[in-house]
Amino acid sequence: MAAQDAGRVTIADIAREAGVSLPTVSRVLNGRADVSPSTRRRVEDLLAHHGYRRRAAQPAGRAELIDLVFNDLDSPWAVEILRGVEDVAHAAGLGTVVSAVHHRSTSAQQWLVNLRARASDGVILVTSDLAPELHAELRRLGVPTVIIDPAGVPTFGIPTIGAMNWAGGRSAVEHLLSLGHRRIGVITGPATLLCSRARLDGYRAALESAGVEIDDRLVRRGDFSHEAGFTAGTELITLPDPPTAIFASSDQMALGVYEAARQHDLRIPDDLSVVGFDDLPQVQWSPPPLTTVRQPLDEMGQVAVRTLLRLIQGETLESPHIELATQLVVRSSTGAARG
Amino acid sequence: MAAQDAGRVTIADIAREAGVSLPTVSRVLNGRADVSPSTRRRVEDLLAHHGYRRRAAQPAGRAELIDLVFNDLDSPWAVEILRGVEDVAHAAGLGTVVSAVHHRSTSAQQWLVNLRARASDGVILVTSDLAPELHAELRRLGVPTVIIDPAGVPTFGIPTIGAMNWAGGRSAVEHLLSLGHRRIGVITGPATLLCSRARLDGYRAALESAGVEIDDRLVRRGDFSHEAGFTAGTELITLPDPPTAIFASSDQMALGVYEAARQHDLRIPDDLSVVGFDDLPQVQWSPPPLTTVRQPLDEMGQVAVRTLLRLIQGETLESPHIELATQLVVRSSTGAARG
Repeated sequence: MAAQDAGRVTIADIAREAGVSLPTVSRVLNGRADVSPSTRRRVEDLLAHHGYRRRAAQPAGRAELIDLVFNDLDSPWAVEILRGVEDVAHAAGLGTVVSAVHHRSTSAQQWLVNLRARASDGVILVTSDLAPELHAELRRLGVPTVIIDPAGVPTFGIPTIGAMNWAGGRSAVEHLLSLGHRRIGVITGPATLLCSRARLDGYRAALESAGVEIDDRLVRRGDFSHEAGFTAGTELITLPDPPTAIFASSDQMALGVYEAARQHDLRIPDDLSVVGFDDLPQVQWSPPPLTTVRQPLDEMGQVAVRTLLRLIQGETLESPHIELATQLVVRSSTGAARG
Repeated sequence: MAAQDAGRVTIADIAREAGVSLPTVSRVLNGRADVSPSTRRRVEDLLAHHGYRRRAAQPAGRAELIDLVFNDLDSPWAVEILRGVEDVAHAAGLGTVVSAVHHRSTSAQQWLVNLRARASDGVILVTSDLAPELHAELRRLGVPTVIIDPAGVPTFGIPTIGAMNWAGGRSAVEHLLSLGHRRIGVITGPATLLCSRARLDGYRAALESAGVEIDDRLVRRGDFSHEAGFTAGTELITLPDPPTAIFASSDQMALGVYEAARQHDLRIPDDLSVVGFDDLPQVQWSPPPLTTVRQPLDEMGQVAVRTLLRLIQGETLESPHIELATQLVVRSSTGAARG
């Protein structure tokens, strides 16, 4: 953020001063044709006056770019989302620049400098767990931005694409109830994430609808990791009156429960039914293949690009938040409760 | 490939006609400063004369880009390689544009058009299993290119980054021998890939060094998929004289063997030891955690970018092929052979 930003004017300021809408200023900044010459001139003069750096003019025929930003590329989610984004972006003639900012502010700042230099047309952030300055700066630059947020972190003023976590949790537990299970354990995600709360509330809603009393000893806190699933799973299966089924609110925790069961000579699903949440590609190959709630990560990536394209074209969205449906995928880790 | 390419002149032709080296033509095409004005003029005149389309001049300060191209983003390899590439590219101030061409020639052609339009500085192809026309066209365009090739497909004239497959296969089997196993099964990859052959030869070399005769019934053909591992694993463990250990030459096949063992009530490692190949992130969480041969996919991505940067700078490589070391990672799926 060099000298040209010294004025610290926002595009909202420019819009107000020019008497035009914010998308109009964006269109001028993006060098789009659909702005009247007099409006363009007025906005450009104000941008110049305030020392606002214009984006580089696009060389004729240059393919356009969008930026897809992760905190880390080692999340099992990353490649699923990337596949959906690349698919729609490629079809729209857009190149997808992938970056990881590693929760580091310096890295995010460097990315922001590069973003401006490469004149990217829009940004998709994965999870909103990025530095707040970054959000503010993106808003100031007027670069259209969409957040893909499987975790359900509350965000402010930026369109987000999420998944139906509550309905997913409910469907997992209804499935177990339909198999005759009554003592059903649950392992939650981090308490700071809305999706953890939504999945747990889905568990409770299903039990309550079925008239099954909630036993607090069967509710264990996790953090989505394999280790948490192993620890909480071990605690649950060694209770004096253990559950016959466990709903782990991430696939990685479900695999942790698998390991706990293996070490205690419990067979899945004969001795213990297990349901996960995510449907990562590898869980179809877990021994046995995991019953889980599918998060449509691929489709979330696709919808994010379509939403971004609308923003780039200056359209207004009907809703700042879109939630895509989750779906129960029944495989071999769940079976009838033993009499 | 539109009208401007009608001449079908190659940059080698231009270099010959201008009496300069091929990297010099590349430097002119890339708009680099380190070419004398008279040479630049001569080369540019020839390019114009032959209707060769110049890459767009870089707007001042535009961040540079490299292209990373996969056939598909659903390979379990993809995200590992991407992590390594993004890491080094980001540090060098380069944006990484990720594309998937889906084995489709139309998709590859579209990508090529976009590549030229966005004036990418270099290309990393993952696996050389891409249309040969694509290779030829990249060579013609003079865009520096490196191949990351975990599979060991033979390539011609393009620098490749691979892994030591033979040594990896040998280390897997030496580990099993050291645990007292003598009847060791192997499940190979597709016969068309050099890496399959190299891993199998590593298996043979380890047995021969230990004076263990090779029993052809213990050698099964697979294709790296979970299903192939399950099928071949089932065949092996139901032999009248079954192996006490299996070397599956991919992690996915190793997990197929896990499922075969589960269905036959064999415990891993008590009744059967299993070694995989790849070290995908999820196998540390397989029940039990998988002993496997680590392919340094992340590092292969890093080395690919470093190699590409050297090519972009017009350097000559010492070797057109680099192989990185594989490494045995011992976890819980291997144990002492039962007397």
